[in-house]
Amino acid sequence: MKKIKVGIVGGTGYTGVELLRLLARHPNVQIQVITSRGEAGLPVADMFPSLRGGVKLAFSDPATVDLTQCDIVFFATPHGVAMRQTPALVAAGVKVIDLAADFRLQDAAEFEKWYKLPHDCMDILEKAVYGLPELYARDIAQAEVIGNPGCYPTTVLLGLAPLLEHGWIDYSAPIIADAKSGVSGAGRKAEVGTLFSESSDNLKAYGVAGHRHHPEILAQLKKLSGHNAVQLIFVPHLIPMIRGMLTTLHVKLNAEGKRQSLQSVYEQRYANDYFVDVMPAGALPETRSVRGANYLRLALYPQAADYVTIIVVQDNLVKGASGQAVQNMNLMFNLPVDTGLQILPLLP
Amino acid sequence: MKKIKVGIVGGTGYTGVELLRLLARHPNVQIQVITSRGEAGLPVADMFPSLRGGVKLAFSDPATVDLTQCDIVFFATPHGVAMRQTPALVAAGVKVIDLAADFRLQDAAEFEKWYKLPHDCMDILEKAVYGLPELYARDIAQAEVIGNPGCYPTTVLLGLAPLLEHGWIDYSAPIIADAKSGVSGAGRKAEVGTLFSESSDNLKAYGVAGHRHHPEILAQLKKLSGHNAVQLIFVPHLIPMIRGMLTTLHVKLNAEGKRQSLQSVYEQRYANDYFVDVMPAGALPETRSVRGANYLRLALYPQAADYVTIIVVQDNLVKGASGQAVQNMNLMFNLPVDTGLQILPLLP
Amino acid sequence: MKKIKVGIVGGTGYTGVELLRLLARHPNVQIQVITSRGEAGLPVADMFPSLRGGVKLAFSDPATVDLTQCDIVFFATPHGVAMRQTPALVAAGVKVIDLAADFRLQDAAEFEKWYKLPHDCMDILEKAVYGLPELYARDIAQAEVIGNPGCYPTTVLLGLAPLLEHGWIDYSAPIIADAKSGVSGAGRKAEVGTLFSESSDNLKAYGVAGHRHHPEILAQLKKLSGHNAVQLIFVPHLIPMIRGMLTTLHVKLNAEGKRQSLQSVYEQRYANDYFVDVMPAGALPETRSVRGANYLRLALYPQAADYVTIIVVQDNLVKGASGQAVQNMNLMFNLPVDTGLQILPLLP
Amino acid sequence: MKKIKVGIVGGTGYTGVELLRLLARHPNVQIQVITSRGEAGLPVADMFPSLRGGVKLAFSDPATVDLTQCDIVFFATPHGVAMRQTPALVAAGVKVIDLAADFRLQDAAEFEKWYKLPHDCMDILEKAVYGLPELYARDIAQAEVIGNPGCYPTTVLLGLAPLLEHGWIDYSAPIIADAKSGVSGAGRKAEVGTLFSESSDNLKAYGVAGHRHHPEILAQLKKLSGHNAVQLIFVPHLIPMIRGMLTTLHVKLNAEGKRQSLQSVYEQRYANDYFVDVMPAGALPETRSVRGANYLRLALYPQAADYVTIIVVQDNLVKGASGQAVQNMNLMFNLPVDTGLQILPLLP
Repeated sequence: MKKIKVGIVGGTGYTGVELLRLLARHPNVQIQVITSRGEAGLPVADMFPSLRGGVKLAFSDPATVDLTQCDIVFFATPHGVAMRQTPALVAAGVKVIDLAADFRLQDAAEFEKWYKLPHDCMDILEKAVYGLPELYARDIAQAEVIGNPGCYPTTVLLGLAPLLEHGWIDYSAPIIADAKSGVSGAGRKAEVGTLFSESSDNLKAYGVAGHRHHPEILAQLKKLSGHNAVQLIFVPHLIPMIRGMLTTLHVKLNAEGKRQSLQSVYEQRYANDYFVDVMPAGALPETRSVRGANYLRLALYPQAADYVTIIVVQDNLVKGASGQAVQNMNLMFNLPVDTGLQILPLLP
Repeated sequence: MKKIKVGIVGGTGYTGVELLRLLARHPNVQIQVITSRGEAGLPVADMFPSLRGGVKLAFSDPATVDLTQCDIVFFATPHGVAMRQTPALVAAGVKVIDLAADFRLQDAAEFEKWYKLPHDCMDILEKAVYGLPELYARDIAQAEVIGNPGCYPTTVLLGLAPLLEHGWIDYSAPIIADAKSGVSGAGRKAEVGTLFSESSDNLKAYGVAGHRHHPEILAQLKKLSGHNAVQLIFVPHLIPMIRGMLTTLHVKLNAEGKRQSLQSVYEQRYANDYFVDVMPAGALPETRSVRGANYLRLALYPQAADYVTIIVVQDNLVKGASGQAVQNMNLMFNLPVDTGLQILPLLP
Repeated sequence: MKKIKVGIVGGTGYTGVELLRLLARHPNVQIQVITSRGEAGLPVADMFPSLRGGVKLAFSDPATVDLTQCDIVFFATPHGVAMRQTPALVAAGVKVIDLAADFRLQDAAEFEKWYKLPHDCMDILEKAVYGLPELYARDIAQAEVIGNPGCYPTTVLLGLAPLLEHGWIDYSAPIIADAKSGVSGAGRKAEVGTLFSESSDNLKAYGVAGHRHHPEILAQLKKLSGHNAVQLIFVPHLIPMIRGMLTTLHVKLNAEGKRQSLQSVYEQRYANDYFVDVMPAGALPETRSVRGANYLRLALYPQAADYVTIIVVQDNLVKGASGQAVQNMNLMFNLPVDTGLQILPLLP
Repeated sequence: MKKIKVGIVGGTGYTGVELLRLLARHPNVQIQVITSRGEAGLPVADMFPSLRGGVKLAFSDPATVDLTQCDIVFFATPHGVAMRQTPALVAAGVKVIDLAADFRLQDAAEFEKWYKLPHDCMDILEKAVYGLPELYARDIAQAEVIGNPGCYPTTVLLGLAPLLEHGWIDYSAPIIADAKSGVSGAGRKAEVGTLFSESSDNLKAYGVAGHRHHPEILAQLKKLSGHNAVQLIFVPHLIPMIRGMLTTLHVKLNAEGKRQSLQSVYEQRYANDYFVDVMPAGALPETRSVRGANYLRLALYPQAADYVTIIVVQDNLVKGASGQAVQNMNLMFNLPVDTGLQILPLLP
């Protein structure tokens, strides 16, 4: 088979280097070009020594590169970059996966409110598909443009999807998502708050008054439930570990929900989803069980007061970002969904 | 003033060494004796090199020691030890503070259910006081025997006390305590699960199906609220940090609760409590802000659906254990509550 | 090609689970059996959740298993186990790679002195090959039994081999190996010293008065240099990280050594060694640049007083243990050396 | 006794907040003023929540503050700031302790070479005292201006002082200082290299080609030994822990040195130094044994080839910086050397 020609825009962040790690060993991919405004000319492996011997490319200047020769372009850039370049790529028949937020929120006003940027790519936004393969595989396979989901939304939505789809949640109570992320989720920006000396041996919540993933989750909760009054309490926490995300969901079941055997409902729902692991009753998912791999594992715990607690883990840089993007690419090019993603987690 | 003669039973765990750190510099204390069955004869500083130069004592054999010469004895032992030795000490006029669970639960049947031990010290249990100074200072001052609270219960109860005391919670919804603890909470036992290579760079929940602090919290919630049908969802998580505890509480307010300015209610409630810090609106408590010190800090966040989220931090080994025990001792000996506890947190 | 039938004895430690991670994705391998005395019957993935979906086997009882059906058996056991079982396996034509120390030291008296065990397998010891592929590839290809090197020796020996082979060291000065290892090197035994709360946010040296890798390194230094009076100061340190090893070597050059361009000497020496990366002058190797992968990277720094400092990094569980074992297996079965080992490091 | 009026210039870094932690509880100190150009007006406790309740001051604008009202001023500023302000303070009779490098190197040309700054305060430099109390207590007591030592030099010099003073080193071999520091040594600047995701679970050397502490150590080695040809190999490493420094020294003894019982020599040399702990033979110093405290612990190991290995630990922010500065202040104001510094280390 002819290799897929891949371009990566913005390869100097953590989602960028993670794309490189995965794509450099993907049997059907040829990485054509990686761009960086600030680092043009620098060999990629000089910035990321883990890629010495594995990636020979240097960063290219985005001003001089012709991305239309690619079959697909990944944007691992700040919010707002992809929407400016996507129209020309789509016009040239190039597929696009944006790992930032430009194509995640169908409601452009919401986007502008939370990201403080005008959305100047509305017609493409309308056709863009939310890239959560376990929910939208068929649309993804046909899509030209993918908005790759945020890391937190992936855990919340896959943790709740079976309940949402069946309509078994009591929406008079808020859904509570108490979420915890490793520090790599904050990216590779030089900031005091994520210095080792500030975030090691420490724990804090952040964004309690409003986090950008809140509207993204809420929009999908409404869509999947068909219920417009869903309420969400979302509290993210910063955990002193590099990778990993664990979301603890507390949900009230309605009368029908209470009658179900949720364990088997979940097992059936995800039986054909290669990357979703419904753990046995009583199991306790750990983030290290998915470190470096594209799996998402979850477990269910019945609680008092008709509540169920659902715990979901993933690697925020893989299933929460770059691995999911590659999974989307596989669907778009009609490859088996696990192609290039059969990496086993690193434990210990 | 004559010094308080202190005995410590079981000085080889983390609450033991923490008691030593605090008491060795307490201006009104003379540490008389530290016992350890396994380590009798060993200088304490040989086990804990941090105490070289600060603590000259060696561990004594509990079989040969006369603890009745002490004014007060701290038990930093496994559950079940204190209740066997306390009657003789009380008879000899020695005060007792137990850092284990022997005197935390007034309901002996509950104790036996959760700790798999018969409670053979019922008359003393009846007189024992739950050692949470911000709630029971007067009783503590008069007490002969203190059951020092668990670490998680301290955060939940001080986080909720103002609401419980005023009756402003809607008890038809469960109280949700999503709690996170550093690894030192698991103690200094050799176990695979708390090895560095198992718990570093990792995150998991544990005890979801039932944790021993659940009945302790619930008993106090009922007592403080006067409301017998309180329901509690309690999910503890293990965080890759040595010390520190952060508990995220999600509570539904009732009609009266909704009308209050909770920020000022909390500030007034704790205005005279030296160790409780109600942070300003919008602040985000961090565990490192209390590392090594006896403070407990909290902040309030109004949420959708008449919920309020309350975030509470403490050092699990200080306010959550040994510091709280010293605070109790201060009250029992009529000393200013912060005597020997004016240690500032270690940051970074 | 027919798959290699592999047996693993002792699969519950870190070198065991690491072998599983690597071999489960090795294209030429069929894992036949994994034994564990203590865990017979338990699915491997119940102990190591990272292997859920990747390894379907359960642990077998070593008493009931016939290992002679395997083509090769890896011993990931305590010292002393392999030497008892190897004679029968060799007699049956099964190849053996021992990840413990049973076949590392040709001098059985030295083995007995350091490991406090009689060596009762002397004839096989004589034929066993020290499994450092960059030094002994030809012998390994022919070997029936491999003593897989210790983690520290791998860094010291590959860091010094070009100098040793050329005879450019001034042996009147001791070779100083200031070595640093992540905590996983201590294994998955329940011990107080490697608890998270004991070894996180901490640094110490250990084994300064005598470490078992000292005689192993010294024997190889003598062999490679042909110089019996080599002296070695070896100081290992325990670093608060899970994986990774960095060894800082300080060596005095002799007159001939001083005249060389060591950078190019090293580059040429390792030009054909897929897993050894001589970094450019001035580079600073980091352990994360090899996390989870079989690379060993090194860099050279000329120093005052005719010394050269050589810094070597590897993942102690991969190139320092299980990856190296797989590399040896590839050589023994005439496969390309990197088969199944083309994993890129995990960064961040 | 009247309190010492203290000013702190540059209170927003780690040495600044550490000075505040120590001085806020010092019984003889009144903190008058803390300056910060960038944060003037901000309450100190808003930046460092650990100081809530402990430090009520806000940062002052350095342009509007009169520091001549202080008895002593600490500079916790970048290199070059203290030397500009010190002449006016000295003229006004204010004592000065600089925690940066302005007064560490007596040779101004060396300073300019390594710090890329002209030294425009030469007359004061001549009178400034190198603030290592265990070596220069008498001079410090008389000094107007103190150059507080760097963290690495403190470990190397106190580790070697007895040998240097007695002349027992064989200077034909280089002194090798293989040093390891926690990340807080890099300060509180926003930089990619010290992000949690870059430096956690990682180990690397840095500054191998030339570190600013090299000339500082070398100058003192020459002074203390009276031997101008001392050679030093200094390799610092970055350890994934917040605080703590461990330096491993490898030194060759001369004929006279070989005949000594170094253990008792060291014990006698430091018998009257409150903060230096010569550990018993065979002990292994750990950084956590000094966490948060002003102690420096060391141990000696005889080695092959007439070498001795000396391992030294300290908290880089306390004995390596701010604690040492307070110790110097105590000497300058004729207070017992441990005043305000009797803090026991935090373990675990």
